[in-house]
Amino acid sequence: MPQRKLDVVLDSVRRLQRMGATANLVNLLQKQHPADLAQLFAELTQKDRVSAFSLLLERNPRLAMEALSELEPDAGAALLADRPADEIVKLTQELPSDDAAAIIDYLPEELSASVLELMQKRPAGGDVGELLEYDEQTAGRIMNPRVFALSEEMTAGEAISALQGSRDVEVVFYLYVVDARRHLVGVVSLRRLLLVSTATPLKRIMTTDLISVRVETDQEEVARQVASYNLLAIPVVDEENKLVGVITVDDIIDVIKDEATEDVYRLAGVSGDDRVFTSPGDSLRKRLPWLMVNLCTAFVAALVVSRFEGTIAVFTALAVFMPVVAGMGGNAATQTLTVIVRGIALGELTWSNTRQALLKEAVVGAGNGLACGVIGGLIAWLAYGNPVLGLILGMAMVINMFVAAVAGTLIPLTLRALKIDPALASAVFITTLTDVFGFLSFLGLATLFLRHLHVAE
Amino acid sequence: MPQRKLDVVLDSVRRLQRMGATANLVNLLQKQHPADLAQLFAELTQKDRVSAFSLLLERNPRLAMEALSELEPDAGAALLADRPADEIVKLTQELPSDDAAAIIDYLPEELSASVLELMQKRPAGGDVGELLEYDEQTAGRIMNPRVFALSEEMTAGEAISALQGSRDVEVVFYLYVVDARRHLVGVVSLRRLLLVSTATPLKRIMTTDLISVRVETDQEEVARQVASYNLLAIPVVDEENKLVGVITVDDIIDVIKDEATEDVYRLAGVSGDDRVFTSPGDSLRKRLPWLMVNLCTAFVAALVVSRFEGTIAVFTALAVFMPVVAGMGGNAATQTLTVIVRGIALGELTWSNTRQALLKEAVVGAGNGLACGVIGGLIAWLAYGNPVLGLILGMAMVINMFVAAVAGTLIPLTLRALKIDPALASAVFITTLTDVFGFLSFLGLATLFLRHLHVAE
Repeated sequence: MPQRKLDVVLDSVRRLQRMGATANLVNLLQKQHPADLAQLFAELTQKDRVSAFSLLLERNPRLAMEALSELEPDAGAALLADRPADEIVKLTQELPSDDAAAIIDYLPEELSASVLELMQKRPAGGDVGELLEYDEQTAGRIMNPRVFALSEEMTAGEAISALQGSRDVEVVFYLYVVDARRHLVGVVSLRRLLLVSTATPLKRIMTTDLISVRVETDQEEVARQVASYNLLAIPVVDEENKLVGVITVDDIIDVIKDEATEDVYRLAGVSGDDRVFTSPGDSLRKRLPWLMVNLCTAFVAALVVSRFEGTIAVFTALAVFMPVVAGMGGNAATQTLTVIVRGIALGELTWSNTRQALLKEAVVGAGNGLACGVIGGLIAWLAYGNPVLGLILGMAMVINMFVAAVAGTLIPLTLRALKIDPALASAVFITTLTDVFGFLSFLGLATLFLRHLHVAE
Repeated sequence: MPQRKLDVVLDSVRRLQRMGATANLVNLLQKQHPADLAQLFAELTQKDRVSAFSLLLERNPRLAMEALSELEPDAGAALLADRPADEIVKLTQELPSDDAAAIIDYLPEELSASVLELMQKRPAGGDVGELLEYDEQTAGRIMNPRVFALSEEMTAGEAISALQGSRDVEVVFYLYVVDARRHLVGVVSLRRLLLVSTATPLKRIMTTDLISVRVETDQEEVARQVASYNLLAIPVVDEENKLVGVITVDDIIDVIKDEATEDVYRLAGVSGDDRVFTSPGDSLRKRLPWLMVNLCTAFVAALVVSRFEGTIAVFTALAVFMPVVAGMGGNAATQTLTVIVRGIALGELTWSNTRQALLKEAVVGAGNGLACGVIGGLIAWLAYGNPVLGLILGMAMVINMFVAAVAGTLIPLTLRALKIDPALASAVFITTLTDVFGFLSFLGLATLFLRHLHVAE
C-alpha cells in the first residue's frame, strides 16, 4: 500500500498495542492484505512484531502465515523459531510448498531437521523435503510441485469440470497437458478453453511447441526464459520430461529482483544476503573478507609508490596530485565496468559483438582521458606555476583513463570466459589496476622528467 | 533460447545470408519465436540485421514486427528509420499500442512527428499519440489502452460470450468490470468465471476490493504494487476512476529490470540509456559530466594534501600510505552505501527503522575499521620499522572507516529526504568525503606527531 496509508495503519497498530486493545488490533490486522501485513511487520520493532504475529496467528492462522511468507525468508523464519516443531509443521501446511520450503530452510538447523522429519510422516508432507533436496537457486527449489495437469485424452468440457473440482492447486492461465505417464505434452490457455465447444478434444487445441525448464535449471536462466517469452508461468520437468512442478511469474519477479541486488552488491563487494537489518556481527563477518582483499591490493599500490619515494622527496607536489590520477582512473573504470557487467547480465553483450564493445570503450576512454587530462593538467600548471608538472599530470591521466576503459572491458569478459561471475571479482582487479597503473605512470613520468620539473619551477 | 541452440541457428542464418539463399533463410526465420528472433537480430551485424529484417518483413510482417518489439526500443526504431512514414504507420498497427508508442518515440524526431500525424487520421490510430502524451515512466505511458471490460449488468454466461467475440484485446487472467460510465467497479478471474453457473450475475462474483493505479503513477510504484500483491496485471484508471488501460506483468518485468539497471548505473555515475552499444560519441557525452564532477572533488582532496606538503617533505613515507587510508575508506563506504541504497529501493528501509540501520552501520564500520586498521598499522610498522607510523596509519584507518560507514548511511537517507534519488548523487559525495577525511586524519595526525615519527625512525 502507499507509504502514507501504511503509516496511518502503522500508527493505529502501535496505539492499539500500547493500549493492550487486542480485540481491536486483531480486527485491524485481519482487514489487511498479506503483502501489507508483511510491510507492517517489517516496520515494527522485533518485540511488537512477535506479539502482533502471535495474536493474528491465534485468530487467523492462514492470513498470519500468508503474511509471514511475504517477508524475507530469514525474517519469516525468525517469527517461527520459538515454536515447537509439530506446530510449525501444522502452520506451514497453510502455505504453498515452495514458500514453506524457503522458510523451513531458514530455521535454526536442529529445528529445521525435526520439522522435516515430522513432515515426512504426513500424507503429501514429503513435498517440502523433496524441494529442499534440489540445489539452491535452481528451478526445483522455487517451483510449486502441486501443479494442475490435464490428461491428453480429455475434452475441453472435461477439462473445465476437472478444474471445477480442484481447489488446492496452483492454476494461473495455462493448463498443462500430460500423457498417461505424466510426460508433459502440451499446454492450453484458460481463454482458449472458453472459446471452443465442450466436445473438442484437448489434443486438438493444445500447443505442443511449449517452453519448459528442467528441475536443475538455474533460476536466473528460468527468469530469462519467462521474461523473454512473456510467460505467466513455466512448467518444470524432470530428466524424463515428466511434469513435476510449475513456477509462476510472481516467483520470477522475486528472482529478478534478487539477481539484480546480487549484481549491484557484487560490484560493491557485498554478499547477497547482507541486508539493511542483517545483524552487525553477520554483516561484519560478511564484509571483512572483501575489505581484507582490498587491503592487500591497497598495499600493492603503496609498494609502487614506495619505489618512487626518492622522487617524491625532491618534489613533494607529486604527492598532492597522485590521488587525482588514481581516482579518475578508478571512476572511469567503474563506469565502463558497470556498463559491461550489466550488458552481460542482460544478455546484450554476446561473444560475437565483444570486439565492437572493446573498440567503443577504448575510444570513450581515450576521449574522456583527453578531456580530463587537459583540464587536470591546466589546473596543476596554474596551481604550481609549473607547466612540466601539468604536462606530466595530464599525460598520466590520459594513459590511466585509457587503460581503465580497456581493462574495465577486458576483465569482466575474461572472468566470464573463465566461468567466474564478472560482477564478483571485477571491481577488486580494476581498483588495483587503476591505482597501480596511475601511480606508475604519474610517478614514472615524473622520475623521467625530474630534471625538467625542477628547471620549470 | 539457450545460447548453444542460438549459436546453431545463428550460424545457419549467416551461412544462408552469405549464400544468398533467401527462400531458405525466410523459412528458417519464420520458424523462430519472436523473442528468439530478437536475440538473433541482436547478434547480427548492422548490415545483416537490416537485410534479414527486411526479408522477414516482406513475407511475414506480423512476426517481423513482433520480433522488432522485443528488441530495445532504440534498436527497434533503428530498423524502421529508413522507411517512409505511411509504411511505418501500417507496420506498427501489427503491435499493441504500448509497444508501438515506445518504438515511434525512438524514431528520428521529424519521422516520428509525421508518423503520429498520419496515425491521427486513422480509426483508433489515436491510441499511440495519446500514450505518448503521458509523461515518461508513468503508468499511462506503458499501459495497453485496449483493455477488455465487462459491464456489471452481465451474467457469467454473457461475459464468456463477450470474451469469445473479442480477439484484439489484451486479456490475461483478470476481467475488469465497469459500470455504465466505464468506472472501474470490480474484477473477476477467468477461473472464477468457469466455476459458477452461467446465470450468475457478475456483480455477485466480482471482487470489488481491487488494486488499480492512476495514469500518472510512476512506473516504479506500479511495479512495486504488482510485485507485492503478486498480480498478473493491474488496471489503470484516470482521475475519475474510469478504466483506461491495463499493464501486464511482462511489462512490469521490463520495468523492474530497467529500474535495477538504473540503480546500478547511478551508483557508478552512468546514465540509464548508456548501454554497451550506445555510440562512442553519445557515451562520451553522457559520462564526461560525471567525470568532471569527480575531477573537481579530486582536486578538493588534492587541496587537502597540499596543506600538508611540509609534513610530507620531511617524512615521505606518508605519501606511500596516503592512498591506503583513502582507498579503504572508499571501499567501506561503498559497501554501506550499496546496502542502504538497495534497501531504500526494495522498500526495506523505512523512516521508522532508520535509526536502527544507522546504529548497525556505525558498529560494523567501527569493527571493520579496527580490524583493517590493526593489520594496516602492523604492516606499516614492519615495513618501515617505525611503530609511530604504524599507529598513525591504524588510527587514521579506524577513524576514516567509521566516518565512511556513518556517512554511507546518512548521505543516501538525507538525499531521499530531499527527494533526490539516493543512488544518483551519493557516490560522489562519499568519494569526496572519504578522500578528504582520509587525508585529513592521516596527514593531520602525522603533523601532530611529526616529532615522534622522527624519533621512532
